This record gives sequence, structure tokens and C-alpha cells, in this order.
Amino acid sequence: MTDDPTAAAIGSFRDTPDERLRTVLERLVTHLHAFVRDVRLTPAEWASTVDFLTAVGRACTADRQEFILLSDVLGVSSLVETVGAGDDPEVTDATVLGPFHVGASPVRANGDSIDLVGGGEPCVVAGTVRAVDGTPLPGATLDVWQCDHEGFYDVQVPDRQPPGNGRGLFTTDDAGGYRFRTVVPAPYPIPTDGPVGDLLRATRRHPYRPAHIHVIAAAAGHRPVTTHVFVAGDPYLESDAVFAVRRSLVREFTVVDDPDRAADLGVANPFRDVRFDIVLERTA
Amino acid sequence: MTDDPTAAAIGSFRDTPDERLRTVLERLVTHLHAFVRDVRLTPAEWASTVDFLTAVGRACTADRQEFILLSDVLGVSSLVETVGAGDDPEVTDATVLGPFHVGASPVRANGDSIDLVGGGEPCVVAGTVRAVDGTPLPGATLDVWQCDHEGFYDVQVPDRQPPGNGRGLFTTDDAGGYRFRTVVPAPYPIPTDGPVGDLLRATRRHPYRPAHIHVIAAAAGHRPVTTHVFVAGDPYLESDAVFAVRRSLVREFTVVDDPDRAADLGVANPFRDVRFDIVLERTA
Repeated sequence: MTDDPTAAAIGSFRDTPDERLRTVLERLVTHLHAFVRDVRLTPAEWASTVDFLTAVGRACTADRQEFILLSDVLGVSSLVETVGAGDDPEVTDATVLGPFHVGASPVRANGDSIDLVGGGEPCVVAGTVRAVDGTPLPGATLDVWQCDHEGFYDVQVPDRQPPGNGRGLFTTDDAGGYRFRTVVPAPYPIPTDGPVGDLLRATRRHPYRPAHIHVIAAAAGHRPVTTHVFVAGDPYLESDAVFAVRRSLVREFTVVDDPDRAADLGVANPFRDVRFDIVLERTA
Repeated sequence: MTDDPTAAAIGSFRDTPDERLRTVLERLVTHLHAFVRDVRLTPAEWASTVDFLTAVGRACTADRQEFILLSDVLGVSSLVETVGAGDDPEVTDATVLGPFHVGASPVRANGDSIDLVGGGEPCVVAGTVRAVDGTPLPGATLDVWQCDHEGFYDVQVPDRQPPGNGRGLFTTDDAGGYRFRTVVPAPYPIPTDGPVGDLLRATRRHPYRPAHIHVIAAAAGHRPVTTHVFVAGDPYLESDAVFAVRRSLVREFTVVDDPDRAADLGVANPFRDVRFDIVLERTA
């Protein structure tokens, strides 16, 4: 018999058949107990925490994942992407998946537009997908999704956007290149009508994410990357509510005033031009 | 802009008006992120964790608190009682409240029975409530609750036990003494039909708690204590599913075969005799 609940709880996992599960639980208990001891969490604070987690559970529905939101605003989702990545600085940084990657994006050809509605600032995004040694990766896929110029994803406003608006699945050409037309995305708030919103208000945090386009790039023989390209100059780059910004992922959305080039690319003039190259790590 | 989600998340709480909330959240993020880095939690494991917490939330109802159960089986509930206690070794150790302290216990007189059903082994529990300096504390209250000889609390089997069975609120006499009649409680399993049960099965842990009687002792000018008295010799003392056992709280439930004493106390012969003295800490 031990009088130490930490030692007892850690020891309780000794017969776990799955060794990874055993390690994760032992370390979870170690760090969780270290937190409780560190702040000398009171029974009243513990009870409030139980109430808060219960409210988070109650806020989860088929269309809403409040636990992911909680993980996001505590920086855990962002950290998981960071620790999961390799440490080659050449490789494109990963960042959070977020809650809006729903179902398969519509397959589109290079040069196609993912903007089915119009109304925002036209924008052309292009780049190459390469291996660390510089080799272009033809046939790589780029799954992209983004909100519109008012900060809404298609699934949030089905009355205003058709399904698949702001989404596309592209394949790189023989030179590893891709290109698509869209509108400049806007910053937007994460949902604040649940307990995570209460937490933000209690801590005087704003709920905004800086404007970004989501990308998952994948190529045979390479480790896929889940990432964003962020719009340089966005007012929330320094204070992303979910801590997903990486310096390496911020790009100028350069204003181009060139009627001939606009006509070539199939966009109205003037437009914004973005270059986002992606480097993938070879798998062993 | 920082590329370190840990530093960014900790920094995000800087404007929290409630200083304690700020500290607790900063330390929570510190320890939670240390856990993620320590085990290099993968995105797939993170997703499983979100699913697990969502299932825990879904299992919570008006009568069932699966987050408390989760806290219990990770040793957190027990630890919170430990860190919340003072460090005077004379003072009776605290342990978990558990989920069965529901509503007010019926007021009873010293010597009364809390067993309204019968069927178990009769038992007399008695002791004194004292201050650290040995002064008896008359007028102290003892709120007691326990399961029956089959391991069930009244609220779990309303068809077999009347409300208030196994419960009583006693007041110490002029010498600080208390006494009540009951039956010897049985070991029992915590609920295993939810996600916490899945966790116990995946880690090959049994769900049993060793037999115990719950006590909350309180006296004016003293810090109340939430505790248990455990039955010596119980097979689960070494492996309580919720890590609540403290050596100092285990008592012999001595068999007494003495018809005259049994008659005096108002119990059938033979019976079990338990002495449980309680020492409270003076508040500042």
C-alpha cells in the first residue's frame, strides 16, 4: 500500500498489453499530477474543472467539436503538429488541420478557380512541390480549402455558398507546379458561443485567426504535410487564437495591376499574386 | 511572432484579470505541453484522445459523472485531496469524496442505526473527534455514508433500499464522542459501462474499491475533513481503483462475541467493533 496517489496511479498501468498506451498513460499521469501539485489545485477548482469539461462535452454535436476547439486555444493542436514534424528546416512547416476539412475536396485542374461565388479580391496562388534535394514532384496532390472574403467556409453558410466553394484538389504538372484562382481569405473568429468562448472572455483573449488558406500536400514516397499559407500584414498574425502561425508560412499577397497578365490568368485586374512553394521530406 | 506554440499559448493569458485563473492556465499549458513533447503525441493519438473525451462527455447524465470517474481512475481526485490538506501528521488524512454523497444525510442520534434494511454483518462504529492538542470537540458533526453488504448505495438500488439507508448525520456528545450502528460495507466496482470502463479494460485494471465508510467531520473553528475508514484485510486495499487508500485510515473491524455487550449496544451477537478517532486542524 502506498500513501502516494501519483505512484499508485502510475503503477496501475503496469499490465497494459499495448506498450505505447502504457507509456502515454504513465506520462500523462506524471504530468497531470505535477500540474495539480504545482498549483495546489483546490477541491473547489477541481470541481469547476469537472463542470467546465462537462459543458465542453455537452457543446459537442455532429457539426461542432468543442474539445478540438479547447485543444486549439490551449495551443495543444498546434504543438502536436510541431512535435510530429521532422526537424529538417528545409521541409515546409506543418500546422493545424482545423475543423473545416470536411469530406473530399472537388478535383480541379491547374488554373481552375475554387471561387464559385465571386465578390472578394481575385487572387492567384501558384508554386511547386519539391523534395528536399530540389527535385520537382510531378503528380503530387494539393488539397486546399479556405474561407471566403467575409471569413466563412462553405459548410458554415450553405445558403450563401455552394458545397465545394473555396475547396479544390489539385495535382502538380510535369515540373511539379500547381496554380489556382481564388479570392483573398479574411480573418475570422473561432466559435465563441460555447464554453471555450467563455474561457476566451474570462482571459480577455480575442477569438480571431489571421487570414489563411489551408493546404495538405502529398506525394508518393514522401511524408505529407498539413499546413497553411498566411496573408502577410494580417492584424492577427501575432495573436492567432489557435497559435498556428509559423513565420515560414507567411506570404505576401502582392497586388498586381497588369491587364494582360490578368487576362492570361483568367482573373479581373487588379489581382493579388501569391507564391507558395512546398518542400516534402522523403519517407524512409 | 513566435514559432513556439507553447510560449505563444502561455503568453496569451497575460491579460487575465483573475490572477489565480491566469496562474492556473499558464501552468496547465506548461504541463500539458510538456506531456505532448515528452511522448511526442502523434496527430492520430491526439484524435483518439479527442474522441475519448467526447465519449466521456456523452456518458455524463444527471445521475452519472464520467469526468469525475476519469479523474478518479487517473488518481487526480485523490491527489487533489492530498495537496489540499495541511501537513500536520496528527490530523486525520483526507481522501476522495466520491460520487455518492447526494443531498443531506438524515439527522440521527448517537447510537442510532443507519442500516434500515438488514441482512449484513452488524457493526458498531465509534470514536471521538478531537483537536490536534487532544481537546475533545463536542458538537462536531459526522456525515457518514456507505454501501450495503452487497456493495450498493441507496441511490443505486431504490427498489431495494429506502432513501437514507446507509447514511446519517451525527453530532458528537459532551466528550466529543460519536457512535452508530450499521453493517459491514462490501468492496464494489466503479461503473464500467462507459468509456472509463473501456480504459480500465484496455489497461487490464480491475474496477474495485476496497470496502469503506465515508465520513465528513466538521467542527466550529476547525478545518473539515472528507475521508474514509477502510476495512482492514480487504483484498483491494493495495489496488483501490481510485487510489484513495491511506494507511492511516485502515481499521480492524474486530469480531466481538459478547451477548451482553451486543444487547447493550442494540446489535445481534456476534458483531464487529470499529474504533475511528478523528483529529481536526484548527483554522487560523
